[in-house]
Amino acid sequence: MTSLVDSAALAAAEARLRGRVLRTPLLPSLRLSDSIGAQVFLKPENLQHTGSFKVRGAINALLTRADAGALPAGVTTFSAGNHAAATSFAAQSLGVPVIVCMPPGAVATKVEAVRRYGGEIVFTDDLVGTWQSIADERGYTALHPFDDPDVIAGHGSVGLEILADEPAPDLVVVPVGGGGLISGVASALRLSGFAGRIIGVEPRQANAVTYGLRMGAPASPPVKQSSLADGLAPPFAGVNTLAHIRQHVDEIVELSEDEIRDGWWAMLDASKMFVEPSGAVGLAAILAGRIDVPAGAKVVLVLSGGNAGRAALAALGG
Amino acid sequence: MTSLVDSAALAAAEARLRGRVLRTPLLPSLRLSDSIGAQVFLKPENLQHTGSFKVRGAINALLTRADAGALPAGVTTFSAGNHAAATSFAAQSLGVPVIVCMPPGAVATKVEAVRRYGGEIVFTDDLVGTWQSIADERGYTALHPFDDPDVIAGHGSVGLEILADEPAPDLVVVPVGGGGLISGVASALRLSGFAGRIIGVEPRQANAVTYGLRMGAPASPPVKQSSLADGLAPPFAGVNTLAHIRQHVDEIVELSEDEIRDGWWAMLDASKMFVEPSGAVGLAAILAGRIDVPAGAKVVLVLSGGNAGRAALAALGG
Repeated sequence: MTSLVDSAALAAAEARLRGRVLRTPLLPSLRLSDSIGAQVFLKPENLQHTGSFKVRGAINALLTRADAGALPAGVTTFSAGNHAAATSFAAQSLGVPVIVCMPPGAVATKVEAVRRYGGEIVFTDDLVGTWQSIADERGYTALHPFDDPDVIAGHGSVGLEILADEPAPDLVVVPVGGGGLISGVASALRLSGFAGRIIGVEPRQANAVTYGLRMGAPASPPVKQSSLADGLAPPFAGVNTLAHIRQHVDEIVELSEDEIRDGWWAMLDASKMFVEPSGAVGLAAILAGRIDVPAGAKVVLVLSGGNAGRAALAALGG
Repeated sequence: MTSLVDSAALAAAEARLRGRVLRTPLLPSLRLSDSIGAQVFLKPENLQHTGSFKVRGAINALLTRADAGALPAGVTTFSAGNHAAATSFAAQSLGVPVIVCMPPGAVATKVEAVRRYGGEIVFTDDLVGTWQSIADERGYTALHPFDDPDVIAGHGSVGLEILADEPAPDLVVVPVGGGGLISGVASALRLSGFAGRIIGVEPRQANAVTYGLRMGAPASPPVKQSSLADGLAPPFAGVNTLAHIRQHVDEIVELSEDEIRDGWWAMLDASKMFVEPSGAVGLAAILAGRIDVPAGAKVVLVLSGGNAGRAALAALGG
């Protein structure tokens, strides 16, 4: 059974997160506006605590359980890194232990971040199987990194913050991995009456959401999901995220690795925003001509995170 | 004759700049706060239009002249790059031609920025002589990049914005090249009754302000000024900036090149702020133990700019 996040859940999440997450500013970029011929605003979740939007969902999910008198004995989750760090950060403040399953090739900066916040890491190629085994063996709460409704509702706070800045945008572009961020943002926008376009962007080499929409379910694509945008390459999408995307999102655009690289550099050069490659895909899609932007439109690009390390600098900047 | 910027000039500059420059947010950094043991806030002028605080002074200086009925026929200035781009940006909007004198080794990103805004560049080692010749030959207004009182008053808007966020900080740390930014910021702070500490930071290899304070005048240090922090290496300080610094600033700290490099990386890693090396010297000074930060103090680090290019990424990130 899928459940769509409703206005009450979004409002409760926003109240719960107040003072716990950074209300990131909506920043105009003159250079990007000039080059695209639109009014471009950035929602810089790379500047968020732990360096990505993921704290919003993780904190909301854990606090919702705690508020219901069900503070978990421990939490386990799986993640390329940003959700792992965010869950560790959230759990540490509640005094709850965390075990995260991460791929062996996880970005070093993200591994360090999990450890900084006291998370225990199990490296495994079988993210989901290991995650479920840990939950069973330890009696830990198995927190889904993007399909948990409380995670989606927490991410919705990004959408509510975007709408607080008037006038409402004409177009909102959101990076897509498992689909948790865009599910939350699109829910918040649509349930507030937003009639503009909402477009998601994912790597062509890691297109779990496009594949899931085509198959009608969160199936694993035949090719191993892998991208320079490491944060956007989960093994499959979610039942709930696919339902939210079908309901609220206009289009999902797929990008090549070269397009992602070019977008990352353009973001850094024009805006001085240091994002991880995942965070630049919205700009990359526009610069690659894959999103139609009417002249003068108000466009919001959600920058999902900034956890790229020295290795990424070498690969991207050189 | 030196003249100290007064409250009226600061207020007029702030009013003149409203809607023309970005009111940059004051952003808390949890990671830097944790590692320093203080409440660390960033004033990210790297996100400012043209990628540095310099637009504030340049726009104020040109608009002040235009408001007085003396719109210049042309403007000439000298700069490592950020003031050159800012003056070109400001002059372009007024339809005034600009010629900037830049050192032959100027950072490519900064050269591109000047051209983007229509500025004409003369590369020369004799920045000041060439600047004055151009002014004489063309009848252009010779705008001093940091010692012009209207430039200093424009930069003061950074200080007024910092004070708008309550409570006032205990410590404000500002990068120092010729001293224009810290002169404006410190004037705005002190004339508003700020009693906390104001500390400037400059490269040891490009210490024009420290040298000028020691000599009692803006003399050229015996060694050619050069630093990884290319924006902080003017040939000498200003008569006016030295006077403001003597009057309002507690201390100028000098840093080694390695300390600057380490601070740059720490800034990127912890805050996801992409600054040029000049923009990271405040953090660098704290991490190098050269500024005493009382536990729990509210500290504001002014990030002066973000115009580092691919070459800097290679040098700094590798």
